[in-house]
Amino acid sequence: MSFSFTLMATDGAARRGEIVTPHGAVQTPAFMPVGTQGTVKGLTPEAVRETGAEIVLGNTYHLMLRPGPERVAALGGLHRFMNWPGPILTDSGGFQVMSLSGLRKLSEKGVVFRSHLDGAMHELTPERSIDIQALLGADITMQLDECLKLPASPEEIRRAMELSLRWGERSKRAFEARAREGYGLFGIVQGGDDMGLRAQSAKALTEIGFDGYAIGGLAVGEPQDVMLAVMAETAPALPAERPRYLMGVGTPLDMLEAVARGIDMFDCVMPTRNGRHGMAFTRFGAINLANARHAADPRPLDEQSAHPATRIYSRAYLHHLVKANEMLGQVLLSAINIAYYQALMRGMREAIAAGRFEPFRSATRVQWEQGDIPPL
Amino acid sequence: MSFSFTLMATDGAARRGEIVTPHGAVQTPAFMPVGTQGTVKGLTPEAVRETGAEIVLGNTYHLMLRPGPERVAALGGLHRFMNWPGPILTDSGGFQVMSLSGLRKLSEKGVVFRSHLDGAMHELTPERSIDIQALLGADITMQLDECLKLPASPEEIRRAMELSLRWGERSKRAFEARAREGYGLFGIVQGGDDMGLRAQSAKALTEIGFDGYAIGGLAVGEPQDVMLAVMAETAPALPAERPRYLMGVGTPLDMLEAVARGIDMFDCVMPTRNGRHGMAFTRFGAINLANARHAADPRPLDEQSAHPATRIYSRAYLHHLVKANEMLGQVLLSAINIAYYQALMRGMREAIAAGRFEPFRSATRVQWEQGDIPPL
Repeated sequence: MSFSFTLMATDGAARRGEIVTPHGAVQTPAFMPVGTQGTVKGLTPEAVRETGAEIVLGNTYHLMLRPGPERVAALGGLHRFMNWPGPILTDSGGFQVMSLSGLRKLSEKGVVFRSHLDGAMHELTPERSIDIQALLGADITMQLDECLKLPASPEEIRRAMELSLRWGERSKRAFEARAREGYGLFGIVQGGDDMGLRAQSAKALTEIGFDGYAIGGLAVGEPQDVMLAVMAETAPALPAERPRYLMGVGTPLDMLEAVARGIDMFDCVMPTRNGRHGMAFTRFGAINLANARHAADPRPLDEQSAHPATRIYSRAYLHHLVKANEMLGQVLLSAINIAYYQALMRGMREAIAAGRFEPFRSATRVQWEQGDIPPL
Repeated sequence: MSFSFTLMATDGAARRGEIVTPHGAVQTPAFMPVGTQGTVKGLTPEAVRETGAEIVLGNTYHLMLRPGPERVAALGGLHRFMNWPGPILTDSGGFQVMSLSGLRKLSEKGVVFRSHLDGAMHELTPERSIDIQALLGADITMQLDECLKLPASPEEIRRAMELSLRWGERSKRAFEARAREGYGLFGIVQGGDDMGLRAQSAKALTEIGFDGYAIGGLAVGEPQDVMLAVMAETAPALPAERPRYLMGVGTPLDMLEAVARGIDMFDCVMPTRNGRHGMAFTRFGAINLANARHAADPRPLDEQSAHPATRIYSRAYLHHLVKANEMLGQVLLSAINIAYYQALMRGMREAIAAGRFEPFRSATRVQWEQGDIPPL
């Protein structure tokens, strides 16, 4: 199989599509669970598959430090290493260099940083990032970009956007030099909350030409209306025949609004991280299972869910596992939450295909706003 | 189904049998994974089943404190609460009152203790223990006994053994009063390392009459030869037509020697606890996966294992998960270790049935003593 994107239906700005990769197809809108260190935390690949997920994300920053991309390659690549036979997207490492590593020195060439694990110095350039992602065997490779912390001055935002564009060009040359036929490379739109810069970035990236386009630098603490406005301006400026990926987003309602503005792909640690802290995402909104009101409740989180654990285990049992700090609580809630994210994607796909995206969106919002079913 | 034990074959003192309980059958020799707080740590019931386990153990001490037996009963019992449809044995709570709780006051009536969770005072008597285990819905109930810490004086050992016998009688009366037709109650032999006291305890318990007999007060730090000598003396003093359960044991080699001396059932936290700390139990002995020699090893732990995770994941991947402190490492190694314990039980069952227990025992010992396969 060779990388492709087929737009199958639209409903307003919302899109229903299919990405094909060397390791299989992905129906969009799609949510990618985050497999930071070669594992979606706590879940076997079978459990990830059971949530409905078709593609997972791997983090270049973590994997380059441990166990190292050359080792993963020697062991047959990331798919085989983690026993995930489906598609994998890897990020470029840039975002986590900025958020996790110590001492950083940014230059035109790339970024030199200190590992948060052992203090060793490493260099990440656009070319090295492409190299690492090829060693991992990513189906979808991301260009290295500079992820600014906001707020930043207009000059800083412009400088980082322009540097990211030059890195995008270098990434494309490096990717083509590796000649990984049938694999995909995505560019990343930057420009902060400046609509003009976002438009410039989108146009210049389109001219370079990528297999897909990500919107970066959002979900970094800005108000939701800013995020939505940037999306609404940026998505239409990208080629309709390529997938659009909103990085690091988000809550179910964020994703609903992003799809309404033309986004196709998402990743976020929220379902797994919040699951590890006792929170469930459901049709009825986010539910804190540590709350005593669940202690004696025999009902499952959602008896209509397609996911067995969501249907089978009582709220009382999940409450018990959370209160007792049992690993199984983290395992089950991680799976339950990813399964809800997947159900939401499936719901959006079906609604778009049927030309009913708007009613689906309102109904989903209403159900979230009404909140959880009342205690017994 | 009603509680029964069928002795299907013997080979020397080793026994191959079948226990039938209201929730299904258990082939013996059997190993019971420990589900302390209503979960075998980190494993879904499906994952427990995939190891080959047919019965799990629940801890009365933990469950009486949280979520409480009345709550579990209101939620449909422990089987439904934890979604484990197979047989469950519960301990009496006595051992963990002695090892985990604060302030204890022991009397003829029972034991008063302070919860390690919230400092609240609780009372556990033989009658209350039976009551709790009935509320949980245990297929096999254990009598309350006094578990002495060794070394203890001969007088102390005799006093505790005699108290345990009186508690055994009270347990039986309380169990019969609950009239749980078809469920089983086990007595517990005590007497420390004193063969005379062990024999007295076994004889008196047999006169009371139980559905099975456990040997308690072993695997509490005594040398292995003492443990084996007590077993060799005690097992034959128990009725041949009832199952014999060695509580809290042990290592694979301990279990091999115990079966050679007529034991049918085991439980131990070792496979899960050590798994959570990066140790794998395999045909080749115990393997510390944190060791750097596994870092680049593409081979699975045991390619001949019947358990998928044991066969599929590379040692390098498991090493990576352990070093990165990933939850999935704990999940996979817990399952891998229980699966090895089950494979050992299966191997013993087949060997006994075929009259080849001795060669199986020597071959297993030799393979453990030879240790792991050499590094690549």
